[in-house]
Parts: sequence; structure tokens; C-alpha cells
Amino acid sequence: MLEDSPMTKIDTVLAKLGTALEKGDIDAAVNLFQGDCYWRDLVAFTWNIKTMEGHDQIRDMLTNQLAKIKPAQFRQDQKEVASGDDGMTDGWFEFETEVGRGYGHIRLKNGLIWTLLTTMTELKGHEEPKGSMRPMGVMHGHDPNRKTWRERREQEAAELGHKTQPYVVIIGGGQGGIALAARLRQLDVPTIIVEKNERPGDSWRKRYKSLCLHDPVWYDHLPYIPFPENWPVFAPKDKIGDWLEMYTKVMELNYWSSTTCKSASYDEKAREWTVVVERDGKEIVLKPKQLVLATGMSGKANIPKFEGQDVFKGEQQHSSQHPGPDAYRGKKVVVIGSNNSAHDICAALWEGGADVTMVQRSSTHIVRSDTLMDIGLGDLYSERAVASGMTTRKADLIFASLPYRILHEFQIPLYEKMRERDAKFYADLEKAGFMLDWGADGSGLFMKYLRRGSGYYIDVGACDLVIDGSIKLKSGSDVSHLTENAVVLKDGTELPADLVVYATGYGSMNGWAADLISKEVADKVGKCWGLGSATPKDPGPWEGEQRNMWKPTQQEALWFHGGNLHQSRHYSQYLSLQLKARKEGIPTPVHGLQERHHLS
Amino acid sequence: MLEDSPMTKIDTVLAKLGTALEKGDIDAAVNLFQGDCYWRDLVAFTWNIKTMEGHDQIRDMLTNQLAKIKPAQFRQDQKEVASGDDGMTDGWFEFETEVGRGYGHIRLKNGLIWTLLTTMTELKGHEEPKGSMRPMGVMHGHDPNRKTWRERREQEAAELGHKTQPYVVIIGGGQGGIALAARLRQLDVPTIIVEKNERPGDSWRKRYKSLCLHDPVWYDHLPYIPFPENWPVFAPKDKIGDWLEMYTKVMELNYWSSTTCKSASYDEKAREWTVVVERDGKEIVLKPKQLVLATGMSGKANIPKFEGQDVFKGEQQHSSQHPGPDAYRGKKVVVIGSNNSAHDICAALWEGGADVTMVQRSSTHIVRSDTLMDIGLGDLYSERAVASGMTTRKADLIFASLPYRILHEFQIPLYEKMRERDAKFYADLEKAGFMLDWGADGSGLFMKYLRRGSGYYIDVGACDLVIDGSIKLKSGSDVSHLTENAVVLKDGTELPADLVVYATGYGSMNGWAADLISKEVADKVGKCWGLGSATPKDPGPWEGEQRNMWKPTQQEALWFHGGNLHQSRHYSQYLSLQLKARKEGIPTPVHGLQERHHLS
Repeated sequence: MLEDSPMTKIDTVLAKLGTALEKGDIDAAVNLFQGDCYWRDLVAFTWNIKTMEGHDQIRDMLTNQLAKIKPAQFRQDQKEVASGDDGMTDGWFEFETEVGRGYGHIRLKNGLIWTLLTTMTELKGHEEPKGSMRPMGVMHGHDPNRKTWRERREQEAAELGHKTQPYVVIIGGGQGGIALAARLRQLDVPTIIVEKNERPGDSWRKRYKSLCLHDPVWYDHLPYIPFPENWPVFAPKDKIGDWLEMYTKVMELNYWSSTTCKSASYDEKAREWTVVVERDGKEIVLKPKQLVLATGMSGKANIPKFEGQDVFKGEQQHSSQHPGPDAYRGKKVVVIGSNNSAHDICAALWEGGADVTMVQRSSTHIVRSDTLMDIGLGDLYSERAVASGMTTRKADLIFASLPYRILHEFQIPLYEKMRERDAKFYADLEKAGFMLDWGADGSGLFMKYLRRGSGYYIDVGACDLVIDGSIKLKSGSDVSHLTENAVVLKDGTELPADLVVYATGYGSMNGWAADLISKEVADKVGKCWGLGSATPKDPGPWEGEQRNMWKPTQQEALWFHGGNLHQSRHYSQYLSLQLKARKEGIPTPVHGLQERHHLS
Repeated sequence: MLEDSPMTKIDTVLAKLGTALEKGDIDAAVNLFQGDCYWRDLVAFTWNIKTMEGHDQIRDMLTNQLAKIKPAQFRQDQKEVASGDDGMTDGWFEFETEVGRGYGHIRLKNGLIWTLLTTMTELKGHEEPKGSMRPMGVMHGHDPNRKTWRERREQEAAELGHKTQPYVVIIGGGQGGIALAARLRQLDVPTIIVEKNERPGDSWRKRYKSLCLHDPVWYDHLPYIPFPENWPVFAPKDKIGDWLEMYTKVMELNYWSSTTCKSASYDEKAREWTVVVERDGKEIVLKPKQLVLATGMSGKANIPKFEGQDVFKGEQQHSSQHPGPDAYRGKKVVVIGSNNSAHDICAALWEGGADVTMVQRSSTHIVRSDTLMDIGLGDLYSERAVASGMTTRKADLIFASLPYRILHEFQIPLYEKMRERDAKFYADLEKAGFMLDWGADGSGLFMKYLRRGSGYYIDVGACDLVIDGSIKLKSGSDVSHLTENAVVLKDGTELPADLVVYATGYGSMNGWAADLISKEVADKVGKCWGLGSATPKDPGPWEGEQRNMWKPTQQEALWFHGGNLHQSRHYSQYLSLQLKARKEGIPTPVHGLQERHHLS
């Protein structure tokens, strides 16, 4: 007898799943999953970002949510092709809930569900005005009170925050805030972005001058306006800055630049924030219903405290403050740290004629850029992927469909391949004294990013300078103290310095909540980022999702948004839908609200 | 016996055509065409924009060009599907020439070629850096002399026009100049745009405030960065202005705003232009090899001369100078003209509380916007077209594949349908005294646009105001003269006026050449635009292409570029390739250089 086709296999399971869910037959639904199973939901079922692992968690979720969510209309996406091999089948499907429409991905093993991804794509009755629903622009007919587009836009800009109140205030106008605000405008949610810099894009422009994106263009598209075909693979920071500036303008965002947030407090009774900002030297009080901190993983600089920092007579900078090498030709520079920024800064300083020493305090994961692009991202985000018909949307969903619990298992073999391909390179680095690692379990860069947001360098050339000694390396000893003109290590080494750069990363985003709102709220919310993997800088218990990111927190009406361009693009979709639903009074019963386990 | 499939039919003819052309067997090639036949070539065979009509013209072209062009590799595009019915088959193909790669469209009737379109897509060895050939952005490795993207861009902007000379100067920075400059940058042809306004987009921003595009978004995309899905169908002028401004920035164009061109002269010996411009009050002399006038069909205002214009005490404006209605509440306004701008301006003035009279001097072609979108453009440029898989590129090529000689035959039935659908509307307009026409041969708006660039209004509401008398209409009598406070018509009617708006169109683009270069050069080049259809304002003889547009002219190194957004997008491809080839010293033997028949 012929085997069922992959399409038929998917159809069969989806039909059973749909029927069970529509009938409220939770046991029948759960039994369609194999024992080792994962259901990742992005807002559609849980009004949360949540992975249910195993039968019990799935049963628990359905028991809480099924009657409220009322899923229906599970059907395979006929425009996609299901595929299968070795007992594994995967495919795409559409579905609805009482209030929204959704899209999903499914993997079967031997006819049972192994992984299920459900995502919300739009709220019924609140669809985005695009494609056939795009605005007309011109208003046909005639009306003595007609206002032009420009007059309406100028009126909105003049009144919002003064005569009228935004529903959402976003603190931080980098790619995260901008992508979210673009989606919120499409959903007709009045929003103000508060940004301390003068121009959109300045958060990139103001960083060290050699900075380019470390992620390739295919991974970096913003929503609505993808980068053009001629966009560089790794965009230089100023070019990204210009793009963000134009994007902010043409997407008609209410972007308050040169504006600092002084304080924010939540009135639990009125369910409203009081956000005090200073704009052009004037204090303005905003009263949004929702507050989003999009201040960036790279927001709050983390500067370690060493004795003697007060007596050191040269300059000291956090990497985020470092302007580039131009002023340091012939100067002695010590860079504390050995991750991305440290390497970029060291290489640029060397190129600029400085005498530069990198202090590596702990091991670092290194991957060569082209190897990473090819082996790590190539199937989903590359010209090769585009040529094979992969779209950004589909790539994002495939990426999202792999449960974090087992993601490292998919990653480990990729990094083994990279290690093999570049064996000589790694040997040379170790010979130069560089301490290498591959992540706690050998799962490499992306897992380090998700777990701790640090601990790696994507090599675009600096490693050769470390190998040949152009960048001097001091490895394996931490800083003891600073003197008037040197950094002294614990092993006694004295490194004369005119400039010390602390390439020592950033704190948890709830540090911003402490500054802007209160320590109490920051502690209530707890640490942001990380999966709870019980690996360095990512303490357990296991969370299964990024802590506090893009989803409800322990503080009502407080949200955290951010990450790289990929995450800003993809997760802004789910955060915007959560905010829109609240604005419209659509019930948003949250399943499994994140608990707090760590203060920071 | 089964009929051959459309794919097979196309394959058969293409194989024969390819063989004949490669062998230089001109007779065999010509005999593949039916007697009533057209070969439209965009640069690939003729280094010109040229339609060969009938066997003799095709034979003539091949006799001139075949040995120089060396076409080869004719093959059907396997990614497209040929289709056929009623003896007609059409399909897509690729080919090469000695210096370039091309793409084409073919229609067969009973196995013989009826229409053939050949277009050049790229020059070998000078492909655009896009897709898999896009730039890296970051420069991997290390180099003490490394310059960042920003430093290089700033250096280029500072030196071009001063230390280094552009290869091309484009006068006029509207959509035409911008689209062309974007393509030239991709082709690495140093280019400066000279624009009198302060900011890119001002040529739109500064027009009357109710102006929106009359063409829909699907027709309007610029190259490289299409409008997003949420873009309005008919974009308001200020929104287009902002888009052009951001486009100019992110495409890194050398855009000299607030710069006026004072004069230009060509040194036939040095084969170089001397272009004198004033930028920020300073005279600068540019020495480009090529000069492009992209000053717009809507560039040079055409104001008729009437007696009494000097004694009239109110304001007089050309439509291009009219700021909108705000200053004219309660005032009496006479608008001379009855085309697009006249209608838009009258409606906005009425909405703004002015007492407005339209003087219709000759009949006008009217089409309702939604009817036009649906029947006129819907198959190629609409959400429906996008949904059916139509791309902008393909739509442009299909559009280009219909020879101008017979285009009206395709248009007439569409306009008959429109007339029928909106019969009541037209009857009401005529009852109001409005003089209607449908073009000389009933072929409607698009043919009027191609032939004379005027003579129509796309109704977005003003007609109802004419019908109900809100906009007063004086029809059938021309202006006799102006008095101190009125416009007097030849039939004796006196129209009191505080403001007279001349919505009287624009002159031929070679008028700009007269102003900037010399009357001699303007006369040598002759009239721009029009097909030579021997219909009003488009005198014969038949040209078969737009006169002098996007192709070599009688003045070496002088080019005219412009038209609507569609034309700016599509024809900038062919103009940019012609300029690039000249820069690289690639032979560009022109077949059938346009002759001059009319001075303006």
C-alpha cells in the first residue's frame, strides 16, 4: 500500500486537532501529541509568549484557555507544500480564534505531533489597512471641511501628547521602538516614541565608527519596507541610521527626538501611566495606558568597578561611548573585554595607529562571519534561501517553530561543522593565548545570544590581528586595579594606558525600570532576557522563553521590547496585537504569566 | 493529432529565430514574422527606443545592426508560462547580445510572429551589485587606511563636482531625475542631480495643496524600493514628496538642491559639456560627458498671452504656481482651462469658500477614477493583478510590448465600456454644458497622454461640482481680454475676478534646452513627446515612439528623461544602460536616430 502523502498526513492530524478543539475534547487533542512534544504559542491561545512542553503543560493550557479562545477552522495552507522524510512530516496551517486569525507550523513524527507553533496574525475587525484594504489617499468627492493628508498629519503631531493622549508610550527609539511603533500605527493605536537622541538612527550613528551590523541583511529587514536588493550584506552603522530615519518619516511615526524620560509611575486604580518627559527643555506629562521599554539590550551600560578608577588620569569609556580611533593615534589603549565590541574597537584602534591591548577576562566564543552565514543562517536567511523561495515571514516562523528546550540540539552539529571547517584558525587563536569556548554545551553563538546576550565575537578580521600580535592580548587574568596611568592585572602585569575602554556589556533591561519607574517595580518584574538554561549568566529555573520580552510582565501595562533587528521585526507583531487588543477592550486572558526568579 | 502546447509553439519559433539571427540569415528571420508585424526594441538591438513596423523595417534594422549586435542564446523563460487562444500565443524569452543580456516578449499568430519586444536588462561585466552580488558593507580583514562607509560617502559628496567630475549631470530632481540617478549609481556612473528646490520632493510639495497622484500606487513604484503594502492608492503630494526625499538619501544620490542651472554648452571636439550652476549663491562649473534634461513634462509653464494681462489688478498664476485655496475664501476666481489641474484647483477653491468659474476653451476627455482603475489598468496594475501573480516588472514589459501603432485598437473598446458604465454621469455633464471628447479616435486617456500629454481629467469628485453648478462653468468661448478686474470672453461674457489661474499646461521639453543651452540646439533636437499620430497637438509624420524621450537625440550627449512615475521607473532602465555603455566605451551603434520634424 502506498504511504499517505505529507499533505494528507498533515490534513488528517489537523482535522482531528480542529475537531477536538472545537468540541472542547481536551484529552483527544492532547493525545494527538507524542509524549515528547512542544506547543509554542505566540499570543493566539495564551495571550502570552509561551512554550508548553509535554502533555501535562498542554492539557493545563487547554483547560485554562480553550473555552475562552474558541479556536476553529484549522486547515492546511494550500499555498505551501508539506514535506516529509524519515517519519518526520512538517507543514503549514491557518486557523481562527473567536477574536483573531492565526497561522501555524506543525511537525509530525510517526503521525503524532512533535512540535506545534501557533501565532496570531490579526484581530478580526481590526485588520491592517494594507493590500486591498490600503487607504485611498485622495478623498474622492468634495467636502468644504476637507483636510489634506499633510494638514491631518501636522494636526496629529501637534495635538498628540498635548490635547490628546497616546495609548502607548515607547521609551527608546532604536530599531525596536521604531518597528513596534510602525505596527501600532497600522493598527491605529496612538503612540509616541520618546528618544533622547536628536535623530532616529542616532543610537547607531553615535557608536564607534567602524561598526557594521554583524547580522546579514536577510535577517535584518524591518516590517513593511524590506531593504532593497542592493543593500549591503552587513550594513554600516550610519547607513542603518539613515534607513531608520527615513523609515520613521515615511511610516509617519510620532517620534519625539531630543526628549528624555524623567520618570514614570503607574496608577493601579486609573490604570494609567504618568510619564514625565523633557522635550526641548520643556517638561511634558504624558498619560498613556501602556508603557513599553524599548531601551535596548544595548541600553544600560555595565561598567565594572575597579579600585583606582578615580585616580586614573587618562580617559575611561564604556564601549557604547567610544567614538572610534581618530583621537588615539600613537596612544596606549587598554580594552577590557573580548566580545564583539571589544574586537571591533581593538581592530579599529590598531588600524588608527594606536597601541592596543585586549584584556580577556574569561573565555569567548568565536565564529568567522562567512562560516556563520553559510552554515548557521544560510537555509533561512541568505541569497540562497531567497532564491529557493524562502520569504522573510516564512523564515521567521520556521525559526520560531523550534522550541527553545531542544534548540541547542539543532545548533550543536552546526557548530561542530564550523569548528571543523576553521580548525586551523582556532588552533592559531589558541596558540596566541586566546581562551575559546563554544557555549556551555557546545551549542554556539545563537544560544549564547538567547541565554545571555553576550560571550561571543563574529570574526570579521580582528582575530588575525590577535593571532599575529598586532592587537596585544592579555588573557586569563582579571583587572586588579588602575593606577594613575596604567591598568594592573591580578597577575601583576601593568598595562600603561592613555585610554581604558570597558567593553563589558550591558545590564538587564529591568535596570531601566528601576531608573525610570522605581526599584520596586524593577524588582517586581525581575530579570529580562535569558531562557533559564542554568548556564553561565542565565540562571534557572527553566523558562522556555525569553524572560519578560514582548509579553505581559508582573507589572500590569509595562512591557519590554527589543533585541536584534530580526526580533524587533518578528516579535513586534505579537506585542502590537497584545496592545491593540487591550486598547479595543478585547478580552486577553493570559495563560502562565511569567514569574520572577531573579532581580537582575 | 494533438495541437502543440503554447510552450512548444514559442520554443519552435524562438529556436528558428535564434538560429537565423546567429547565422546572419536575415531573410529567414524576417520570414518568421507575419506581414502585419511589429518589433519593438528597447536598446538591445538598436541602441535606441524604436519600433520596427512590417518586414521592410525589420529587414532594414537587421541589415544595419545584426553583425554589430551579435544576438545569441534565444531561449524561452522557463519560469514563465506561455499561453494561447484563438490562434494567438504569447510568451517570454531571454537572449544575449555581444555586450549585454536581454529579455523579451513574443506574440504569435498562427505560428508567425505578430509582436516582438526585445529589451536590454544588463551589460555583461557591468551587472548591478544586487542580490548575490550586493556589496558586503563591512570590509572584512584589516587595513590601516580603511575608510568607513560614511567617510567614503562624505568624501565623494565633497569631491564630486569639485575635485572630480560627474559623468552625467541631470537637470531636474523630480521622480524622473531621481529614478535615473538611482539606476546610474547602481551602475557606478558618477552623477549629479541639479535641482532648484530646497529638498527632494519639493516639486510635489509646492503644488496646490489638494493634489494627489492620479495614477494608483501599483503603477507608481520607483526602482529598487517599491512602496509598502500600506501605501495609499492615490498618494497625497506631500507624502510622495517625503518618499522621494528619503529615497534620495538612502539610495545615496548626489543631489544638489537649491541649485539652479544657469547655462550649458557642448564642446563637440572635447565631447564634453560645460554646465554652469549656482549652488548656495556660488557659481560652479561642471564638466560632464552627458547631460540629461529631466525637467519634466510639467516643467515649463505655458501661459497664453491675452490683452489686458498687464492692466488686471488681481493676482495671476499659472496652475503650477497656485498655492491652494486658503487665501481665497470669499474671493472670485476664474480658472482658465479644463484639464486635471483645472478641475483639482476649482474643487479645492470651492471647498475653500471661493466663488469659482472654470473657463472651458475646448472639449475635454473625462474618466471617473474608479472606472479607469478597474477597466483601464486593473489587469496590470492593481491589487487584483498583484494577487494573480503579476509583478511590476512583468506589467511594465507587457505594457511595453503593445506597439504604439495599434495601441489605440486595444484602448478603444475599454473606453467604450467606461462610457457605457458611466452613461448617466456623462449625460449630466453634457447637460451642465461641459464639452466632452474621447480623443480623436475614441481611444481615450492613455493615448491622449502619449500623444499630447494633456486634454483630460481623471474625475475624483470635481465633476459633480460642475454638474450641480457649485463650480460655475463657461464653456465654448475663449478668452478675449482682461480688464482691471475681470476676464472677458469672446462671447462678451464678463467674469469678475480677484484671481486668474492659468491651468493651461506646459510647453515641449526642448523649450528647456532653448533656455539652458541655446535656441539652436533646441531647434536641432525639436519637439519632445508625442507619437506623430496626426491628432490634435501631435502632428505627423508617424514616429512610433515618444519623440526624443529616453533615447539619443540629434544633439550628441543630450538626453530627455521624464514622464509619470511608471515611465520614470521603466525607461530609466534603458536610459541608464545607454549612458553606462557610453561611459565604458562599449560601442553603441544607433539605428534609426530620430529626425526633427517640429520645432516645438
